[in-house]
Amino acid sequence: MDITLTDKTGRINGRMFPDDNIQGIFNSIKEGSICKICGNVNEFPPGSGKINIIVNSINELSEDDYDLDDFIRTSDNDHDELVEEIRLTIKNMENVHLKNLLKSFFCDQEFTKVYYKAPSAIVHHHNYIGGLLDHSVEVLKICKTLCGIFPDLDRDLLYTGVLLHDIGKMRAYNHDLLKIEMSTKGRLMGHLYMSCELVKEKMKDLDFPDELSSKLLHLILSHHGDISMGWGSTISPKLPEAVALHYADNLDARVKEMFQKKID
Amino acid sequence: MDITLTDKTGRINGRMFPDDNIQGIFNSIKEGSICKICGNVNEFPPGSGKINIIVNSINELSEDDYDLDDFIRTSDNDHDELVEEIRLTIKNMENVHLKNLLKSFFCDQEFTKVYYKAPSAIVHHHNYIGGLLDHSVEVLKICKTLCGIFPDLDRDLLYTGVLLHDIGKMRAYNHDLLKIEMSTKGRLMGHLYMSCELVKEKMKDLDFPDELSSKLLHLILSHHGDISMGWGSTISPKLPEAVALHYADNLDARVKEMFQKKID
Amino acid sequence: MDITLTDKTGRINGRMFPDDNIQGIFNSIKEGSICKICGNVNEFPPGSGKINIIVNSINELSEDDYDLDDFIRTSDNDHDELVEEIRLTIKNMENVHLKNLLKSFFCDQEFTKVYYKAPSAIVHHHNYIGGLLDHSVEVLKICKTLCGIFPDLDRDLLYTGVLLHDIGKMRAYNHDLLKIEMSTKGRLMGHLYMSCELVKEKMKDLDFPDELSSKLLHLILSHHGDISMGWGSTISPKLPEAVALHYADNLDARVKEMFQKKID
Amino acid sequence: MDITLTDKTGRINGRMFPDDNIQGIFNSIKEGSICKICGNVNEFPPGSGKINIIVNSINELSEDDYDLDDFIRTSDNDHDELVEEIRLTIKNMENVHLKNLLKSFFCDQEFTKVYYKAPSAIVHHHNYIGGLLDHSVEVLKICKTLCGIFPDLDRDLLYTGVLLHDIGKMRAYNHDLLKIEMSTKGRLMGHLYMSCELVKEKMKDLDFPDELSSKLLHLILSHHGDISMGWGSTISPKLPEAVALHYADNLDARVKEMFQKKID
Amino acid sequence: MDITLTDKTGRINGRMFPDDNIQGIFNSIKEGSICKICGNVNEFPPGSGKINIIVNSINELSEDDYDLDDFIRTSDNDHDELVEEIRLTIKNMENVHLKNLLKSFFCDQEFTKVYYKAPSAIVHHHNYIGGLLDHSVEVLKICKTLCGIFPDLDRDLLYTGVLLHDIGKMRAYNHDLLKIEMSTKGRLMGHLYMSCELVKEKMKDLDFPDELSSKLLHLILSHHGDISMGWGSTISPKLPEAVALHYADNLDARVKEMFQKKID
Amino acid sequence: MDITLTDKTGRINGRMFPDDNIQGIFNSIKEGSICKICGNVNEFPPGSGKINIIVNSINELSEDDYDLDDFIRTSDNDHDELVEEIRLTIKNMENVHLKNLLKSFFCDQEFTKVYYKAPSAIVHHHNYIGGLLDHSVEVLKICKTLCGIFPDLDRDLLYTGVLLHDIGKMRAYNHDLLKIEMSTKGRLMGHLYMSCELVKEKMKDLDFPDELSSKLLHLILSHHGDISMGWGSTISPKLPEAVALHYADNLDARVKEMFQKKID
Repeated sequence: MDITLTDKTGRINGRMFPDDNIQGIFNSIKEGSICKICGNVNEFPPGSGKINIIVNSINELSEDDYDLDDFIRTSDNDHDELVEEIRLTIKNMENVHLKNLLKSFFCDQEFTKVYYKAPSAIVHHHNYIGGLLDHSVEVLKICKTLCGIFPDLDRDLLYTGVLLHDIGKMRAYNHDLLKIEMSTKGRLMGHLYMSCELVKEKMKDLDFPDELSSKLLHLILSHHGDISMGWGSTISPKLPEAVALHYADNLDARVKEMFQKKID
Repeated sequence: MDITLTDKTGRINGRMFPDDNIQGIFNSIKEGSICKICGNVNEFPPGSGKINIIVNSINELSEDDYDLDDFIRTSDNDHDELVEEIRLTIKNMENVHLKNLLKSFFCDQEFTKVYYKAPSAIVHHHNYIGGLLDHSVEVLKICKTLCGIFPDLDRDLLYTGVLLHDIGKMRAYNHDLLKIEMSTKGRLMGHLYMSCELVKEKMKDLDFPDELSSKLLHLILSHHGDISMGWGSTISPKLPEAVALHYADNLDARVKEMFQKKID
Repeated sequence: MDITLTDKTGRINGRMFPDDNIQGIFNSIKEGSICKICGNVNEFPPGSGKINIIVNSINELSEDDYDLDDFIRTSDNDHDELVEEIRLTIKNMENVHLKNLLKSFFCDQEFTKVYYKAPSAIVHHHNYIGGLLDHSVEVLKICKTLCGIFPDLDRDLLYTGVLLHDIGKMRAYNHDLLKIEMSTKGRLMGHLYMSCELVKEKMKDLDFPDELSSKLLHLILSHHGDISMGWGSTISPKLPEAVALHYADNLDARVKEMFQKKID
Repeated sequence: MDITLTDKTGRINGRMFPDDNIQGIFNSIKEGSICKICGNVNEFPPGSGKINIIVNSINELSEDDYDLDDFIRTSDNDHDELVEEIRLTIKNMENVHLKNLLKSFFCDQEFTKVYYKAPSAIVHHHNYIGGLLDHSVEVLKICKTLCGIFPDLDRDLLYTGVLLHDIGKMRAYNHDLLKIEMSTKGRLMGHLYMSCELVKEKMKDLDFPDELSSKLLHLILSHHGDISMGWGSTISPKLPEAVALHYADNLDARVKEMFQKKID
Repeated sequence: MDITLTDKTGRINGRMFPDDNIQGIFNSIKEGSICKICGNVNEFPPGSGKINIIVNSINELSEDDYDLDDFIRTSDNDHDELVEEIRLTIKNMENVHLKNLLKSFFCDQEFTKVYYKAPSAIVHHHNYIGGLLDHSVEVLKICKTLCGIFPDLDRDLLYTGVLLHDIGKMRAYNHDLLKIEMSTKGRLMGHLYMSCELVKEKMKDLDFPDELSSKLLHLILSHHGDISMGWGSTISPKLPEAVALHYADNLDARVKEMFQKKID
Repeated sequence: MDITLTDKTGRINGRMFPDDNIQGIFNSIKEGSICKICGNVNEFPPGSGKINIIVNSINELSEDDYDLDDFIRTSDNDHDELVEEIRLTIKNMENVHLKNLLKSFFCDQEFTKVYYKAPSAIVHHHNYIGGLLDHSVEVLKICKTLCGIFPDLDRDLLYTGVLLHDIGKMRAYNHDLLKIEMSTKGRLMGHLYMSCELVKEKMKDLDFPDELSSKLLHLILSHHGDISMGWGSTISPKLPEAVALHYADNLDARVKEMFQKKID
């Protein structure tokens, strides 16, 4: 029987050879529980460099017996620095409508409490506590470099798009400390639409200009790239800022994925 | 010089052989105006059966000189029958939330005034005054047959999805009697998202149940089929009703297109 | 060891934990036999809502010990109604050639004996005794609605195409009550070609007009859609009736598939 | 006005600058007629090496004024050698059923009269009088080399498939000496199916074994390669001989196309 | 007759209405010459906002009559800043092999003379004098931001890949001040391979470590992304630095393209 | 537990039913060792014709206990005939540059020692000792037939391309008698580029003409077909010889694959 063993440092395959009691062991383990494994580290096939653990025993632990922090995968970044990067970005905005819109999100503690903890994916890249924050600030940094290269990019529009493009994931995923799952809403509407819904809700109270609203929603709806790619955009990127957001988002996600593969 | 001549009965190619005054003729014709053509019907290449008109003269007409109805392409269907089909469909619904939602649209004369005249496309299928109404009722009829075949389909959900799936086109296109164009909003957000926005606006006043809302929005967001096709769905159809809506929509559009090709 | 347990009501996963005798059990079960299972219903992973059966014993039954009807998946529809729908459709046809062609099939008891029992697929949709009949009549109903919407469709041609498009499956699959397999002919020629072959055989005795024959064969050869989709059409649909047949066929199959997934 | 000038040696672009009589010239030229051009050879853009003809006059010729052979594109190969290659191939066959089938075609002068003149395409490769014969013998030669490499290939089956795979083109195209067009049958059924139909007709009189028939039809139906490529096979190649036929057919067609591009 | 008029500020469409002398005008203009246009600015179709020029006369100018700098499209960037950015990047490298390799290029005036003037494309993005330099430094800036985000990226390898990935374009294109064309080598081998060839030539004199060489060549050979995209990589990106280079390259090119579209 | 058993005659599945000692058996088998299996031949599922071996014991053999030749899959062809075919091909070449280039390879015993033993793939076609030689000579034979059909093909260029197109595989794979693996270089650069590198090295000493070099490298770089197929060409085939090489290579590989499937 193959088992996947995981803690915050990564994953390893385990193997248990069948014995009479395997059915009992099976039934004794509750979903979401944390277990103690005894076993031997094993290289198989011999000489291959592939390590797994031959599991001899497996026992569920009570909450007193472990430190939860050893099992939760979180960001390696300094949380305060990330938050400060966002704060400064908003502070330096010139477009008052976009600035107020972002304030309505990031000065809202109910929002930030969730945003700062949300994962950015179930599998693939940034799939851990704080992954959404990490990813958003990373794309922000890339887009700041881009605005240095292409001064005709509308900075405020682009940065707002970056900070809000994935907020629908806050509702699209259910996650507790140990597991991330798609919510019913996420399964039925997808995070692109859900990001727009959250943005529209905040806009209502702000007397937001109609054309600027269309542009911002365009950035969100097109951030999975050209519709012909079949990646879920409902409209292809048509503004330079939308093109910038899509490719910057993709760049960050693909590089992150390479490094996570090495750990997982 | 090749010209496309069009009135409500279809299109034909015209040819003008160049003479000294062609530049003057060019400049004298205002966009959107209606002109009188004199010329000879011509078969070219000879024997090919392809008819065009060798234009000898072309003169703009004043509004008194023509009957606008000769130039507007409209539905061939009996308008009142289509409206009655929708009225009865709503009347027979059992789900009170969906029934009230549809009433909030179809008892709103500002809505119906636009809905009943809107085209369903710029090119391709149903691209004429009343095309949206034609298309919606046609898909409705197909879906009624489907509900006879598959009694487990949620009729009220499916019919509501049918009647509302394309309403975003009312805002996505600008059209007057003679011409249909994409609006800025249509270009930036697409009609799938815009249909959802219109639906969400009406839902606000109706205390609409959350899960039912997600399902209805799912039908709209997925009605262009599996995202991997690259046709602009932001989520793939996951409910039987969403699958039914997509394929019924496609069936009606593709058959209509075949018949329009013959006229155009 | 994982086992798939199946009777006419659907499928469920079974698990047997290994013991010394598992090899003996393995060898004792003949293919195509019907067995009695003793075991415990189990939810695994616990709390997941996924039900399977922990099998304690598994014994082959003799023919006296079970009622075969409990194990054969068949249509839920009233067989006589389906047959009557086809009879009336043929009766109301005006094109005498197509009417005679259909009669040569449906008044031939050797044909109907097989047609009425044939499955419409090995996996996917309508993969059960009578599935071909169910599917054919369902597509017929959709196409009747279409002919109401598009009166320029050639009804007799379309209905004939519907009733005959999949008859090659009668030879492409071998099936007994419990299992459906691809025949050698099906593997080498496919059901599109085989439907045409059956139609050509009947036409020989009927003095069938050449152009009408080409049109009908076109409907069959193109009913998997545009060749560029890579779904096995040997020619893309070029007549409105061919477009109608392809999309109606697809609509019925895809919705049916959604409901079968829930049972399987 | 741009004109394409063509004789048996290839094509060249012509240009006529407009004058008052251009409409008259247009109308005076009958389709399918042969004309005399007077004009100046011209390099445009200057220095580009692209040659065209500035046409000064264009006059239709009567049949006495030209030699038709100067305008008909035909094979460069020795016709008798090609026919002999086929004759010897048939003579050396061991499988009596396949040998008799081929004889029923190639000893039938009504068949060979058409087969030896038929083009193999409208555009692309081998699109000239005798193109089908050229192409068939070329693929035959490649397949003979293949049978030398892979002695397990069934030679007789493969060679029969080669010689018959494209015979449907005899009915799929209408051609006279100067022009090749798709026939109605070709447009509705395609040459793959039509090849099978011709083969089936001959088989009827020959008491042809069922399984061998399926294999040969498989070679024809799958010779456009895997169905997922979207090139019109109705079944993917499943026998080694079918794989050999498809790739040999493709190899010959693609190389031929490269050389024709240089001439056209 | 439609003409494209172009100077360094962009392009505009011109129209000439035919007159008797148009053939003479045609022939009088040498390829690559610079002409004076007289004409009227015109909005066509009227009210559409689309501007073109109705050309009345067109006369070739002698070299004394114009300032070539008005017609050459060049970079908007400060050339010295770009060169300084590269110099500093090389200076700060730690890996002595990569540093020496870059020095062997950028301290070679024959190389830099060409590199600093080369365009980065024929059409699409950066298709002007100095476009290769602009593009390389832009991608460098994006990759520096990336190395800030992902400290595990091998900076020296990535920056070297950035500076050398497109140097094959120096040989793949022939360009003079007014025109860019593909060279024979470019047409037969493509710039990915040609970049590798240039790199290999320099490596020969440097005793370059084998594995580092493979990695650098990998970055170049894979910089058009996954081979399944069909964009011309001969190997898919397998190192994080290769993934970073591909997506950064793509990001810069796509945003640049958006802004060039507005000018062209 | 499922095991794959393999010797030179092919593969078969084995099954071991778990017992207490399975972990011990597992650990006792060294990678790359040769074992003796005792067990019963078994048909499972019963009646299916699928044969596997129920393994009762498995014991590693010492080198004295077996004859290695029973386990190494090698070519069925006469080695000397293949070598002679290459020698004659080179001898008959007229182009002195290409002839000398081939001599520099095939008169170099260090090269031929490896070339004659190399496999042509890890899985798929010709994946055995001598597979590269088999494949190269097979493609050569097909191309000789092609040159008979298309006398305008440049024979010497094509044959040189055939003999050298896959030589990069000599460095791209590591293989010993029993196993084939991708080398680091193969993983990072791919065999297309590596073939070019080997060719370039030899050219250096030969004063090879520049344009001929570009053509030969083009044949190698494009031999996986059009780049849009996503099969790893870095440039699409543009010369008739490149088209011939790609399609001949593909033809040989696909037919070989069909026959190997039957054995494996």
